[in-house]
Amino acid sequence: MKTYTEHVTLQTDNHREFTNLTPRVKAAVEKSEVTDGIAVIATLHSNSAILVTDDDPKLLEDIDAWLEKLAPAGDEYKTPLSRESSGGIYLQGLALGGDATVTVVNGKLELGAWRQVFFVELDGGRPKRLVIKVMGI
Amino acid sequence: MKTYTEHVTLQTDNHREFTNLTPRVKAAVEKSEVTDGIAVIATLHSNSAILVTDDDPKLLEDIDAWLEKLAPAGDEYKTPLSRESSGGIYLQGLALGGDATVTVVNGKLELGAWRQVFFVELDGGRPKRLVIKVMGI
Amino acid sequence: MKTYTEHVTLQTDNHREFTNLTPRVKAAVEKSEVTDGIAVIATLHSNSAILVTDDDPKLLEDIDAWLEKLAPAGDEYKTPLSRESSGGIYLQGLALGGDATVTVVNGKLELGAWRQVFFVELDGGRPKRLVIKVMGI
Repeated sequence: MKTYTEHVTLQTDNHREFTNLTPRVKAAVEKSEVTDGIAVIATLHSNSAILVTDDDPKLLEDIDAWLEKLAPAGDEYKTPLSRESSGGIYLQGLALGGDATVTVVNGKLELGAWRQVFFVELDGGRPKRLVIKVMGI
Repeated sequence: MKTYTEHVTLQTDNHREFTNLTPRVKAAVEKSEVTDGIAVIATLHSNSAILVTDDDPKLLEDIDAWLEKLAPAGDEYKTPLSRESSGGIYLQGLALGGDATVTVVNGKLELGAWRQVFFVELDGGRPKRLVIKVMGI
Repeated sequence: MKTYTEHVTLQTDNHREFTNLTPRVKAAVEKSEVTDGIAVIATLHSNSAILVTDDDPKLLEDIDAWLEKLAPAGDEYKTPLSRESSGGIYLQGLALGGDATVTVVNGKLELGAWRQVFFVELDGGRPKRLVIKVMGI
């Protein structure tokens, strides 16, 4: 069995930002020399998320607006002010989810024609870390 | 380590439809000869989802109604009209999630007494592809 | 390849309760002797969930209130009364998701500084089962 791990640190200035991780995940699959297995992508911060969806700027705007409706960032929450983000930001993070698993077949990441892996920064300004792990044969 | 991959193509006429994938996933586990590992099920289309829940037609109706309330399919979105589906459909897809991981122990898929794996078509009429991958020893 | 599986049964008296599974998952990683791989945590009941988020009692209260807003437990649903829980409880379960995958690197579970793995009981009073599976080298 082969495994390969890459830690990525990202920092964005925007409050919310979608970073397309697909090129990095594909590069990790190549470096791993895994031809048959999985790639796991996981964030290490609860005020961020990992999302697999189509890469369309207008769709990402729709996701942005929807997250704000689903769990408004500025609303009253009990989450203490000493935390980095408001309660709403953490709710947005768990609505999207913090990890994704993508299959690797014949050395290729299987995302279909349009799907891409995104790191979703939900409250920018500080560095965030995520893990890409490839496992298989 | 053993791995086994199966690609499934599904086409449904209904706008929304739940296809119980459990028999196919169980068959894939048998073919894989994996007795101890995981099964990853992932869709390749963002206007669909993979869902693990109980197999009860009335519950699936509740999920249907809830998705439509959570992100109405017909509402105004910025997602371009050139896309296959409305913005709401893609939001429904990411709310449910596109992949699930189920453990395999003693050659059996571990879903508990009631849980089943579903492919959720969110905007039917075109063929959709998904992947079932079994890995382990 | 090494694998290790642990089944956990939890019973809580409270309607909703968050049980921090992190110590158990860490112990499973140690027992597995896996230094490089993944840990999969999955519930076997649809009226419960697996959640990775920060361990802060006030944040957990926010999550509690948000779930009740997202899919009220007592509302009218079609899910039959013969079921253990109301339709809203199952919707809460699928909103949070039933499984999580965490990477293992150098023998350590990678959760970042604050993230923890929780079993979320959504309708307490009966025993619930979940699986922790560690795989890797």
